[in-house]
Amino acid sequence: MSGFVSLVGAGPGNPELLTVLAKRRLAEADVVVYDRLINSALLMPLTAELINVGKQPEHHRVSQYQINQLLVKLARQGKRVIRLKSGDPDVFGRGGEESQFLHAAGVDFEVVPGITSAIAGLAAAGIPITHREFASSFHVITGHHKAGGHQLNWENIAHQEGTLVFLMGMKELGEITHQLINHGRPKTTPVAVIQWATHWKQRAVRADLDTIETVVNQHGLGAPALIVVGKVVSLMPELALTKPLA
Amino acid sequence: MSGFVSLVGAGPGNPELLTVLAKRRLAEADVVVYDRLINSALLMPLTAELINVGKQPEHHRVSQYQINQLLVKLARQGKRVIRLKSGDPDVFGRGGEESQFLHAAGVDFEVVPGITSAIAGLAAAGIPITHREFASSFHVITGHHKAGGHQLNWENIAHQEGTLVFLMGMKELGEITHQLINHGRPKTTPVAVIQWATHWKQRAVRADLDTIETVVNQHGLGAPALIVVGKVVSLMPELALTKPLA
Repeated sequence: MSGFVSLVGAGPGNPELLTVLAKRRLAEADVVVYDRLINSALLMPLTAELINVGKQPEHHRVSQYQINQLLVKLARQGKRVIRLKSGDPDVFGRGGEESQFLHAAGVDFEVVPGITSAIAGLAAAGIPITHREFASSFHVITGHHKAGGHQLNWENIAHQEGTLVFLMGMKELGEITHQLINHGRPKTTPVAVIQWATHWKQRAVRADLDTIETVVNQHGLGAPALIVVGKVVSLMPELALTKPLA
Repeated sequence: MSGFVSLVGAGPGNPELLTVLAKRRLAEADVVVYDRLINSALLMPLTAELINVGKQPEHHRVSQYQINQLLVKLARQGKRVIRLKSGDPDVFGRGGEESQFLHAAGVDFEVVPGITSAIAGLAAAGIPITHREFASSFHVITGHHKAGGHQLNWENIAHQEGTLVFLMGMKELGEITHQLINHGRPKTTPVAVIQWATHWKQRAVRADLDTIETVVNQHGLGAPALIVVGKVVSLMPELALTKPLA
């Protein structure tokens, strides 16, 4: 019998933000190939074999090509394979690349979506990503770029009406705020930074484009964190269940 | 004892794309206030009282203000209230407005995120919303605008590098394609339309900016549907489990 690979989104961190389908797939799995940032509370109850291919930023322990080959090898052994990724597999998670590799190798696969922190992480800090009064669009941008890839079009990004969400952008926080201000965003535009969104150890701060870097440093926030820019951030003091640190 | 309101995302349609937390909240609820487009498979097993406040487009059966007041009234009766919305409560779902109303009324509440069709609906049709080769950002835009609100900045939207996703935009499909072409997007830019994404009755077509409206009409696709614009659409024939109609 030939195997099957499910590319599964584990959600943003809170183990109950897994989907019912993802939970079922995990319970049925023979082997789970998982990333860094996967909450161990999700893995502990499983009977499947667990393989950690977690990558540290700038310290790739297992290459993407090796992961692709591992998935094919396990599937060809007839196994029910889960490729478990934090958030959603297709939101900067290389789900598309792994899907293409599996397709080319003739391995059956599916994509099981997950809750992305790019939306739910905001809600957990009291920020609705859209609001009729403030934002009729939202824009999700990665701070990681492919070597040799295009530079971001800051002129366009700075002038979007909707909420801006930067993932994996903490190393570029100064550059992001600098570019937005240089391209015409008022220095007083509200900004939030949310670390470990939806985890019990979530921490959040609120400031403006001009001051957020200082406030983040004062409170010692670092990756993994979301950067949120736009008027919806102003709702945070009213709607957050846990008050921001600043 | 004072009640509690959970604003819960039901996900895109497939009942197994509910989160574990949302499922638990539904099982514990005294009353569920739900919208149009909620899959009845989610409601049937529940013991809670069910109240339909579903709104048809252009035919508001229950006003947003009436919904807000109903939630407060039920909570003040000491009930565990679920406000169940399709997708995610904060993605054009007025979760923010309802949260503000509950906060102002002194009612305890939470937001339980849901899988949004704006991401998972693409995956279900074989389209990864991001891809290192094609898209390092994505942009989600509603086709519904508040009366008297800003017009979309088409110049900016047309020149985004990343994937564009329009929700509730089927009535404006011609306008959307027209504006994108007029603002410099090539007529050959790939476009997909996905109706009833993740439901068993999902249907999808693929064409380009110049031809999508004709193809949609040929196949009789209508709301509810997603419109997806960008290079990632070109992966659809390779990655879709069910082939597009066109």
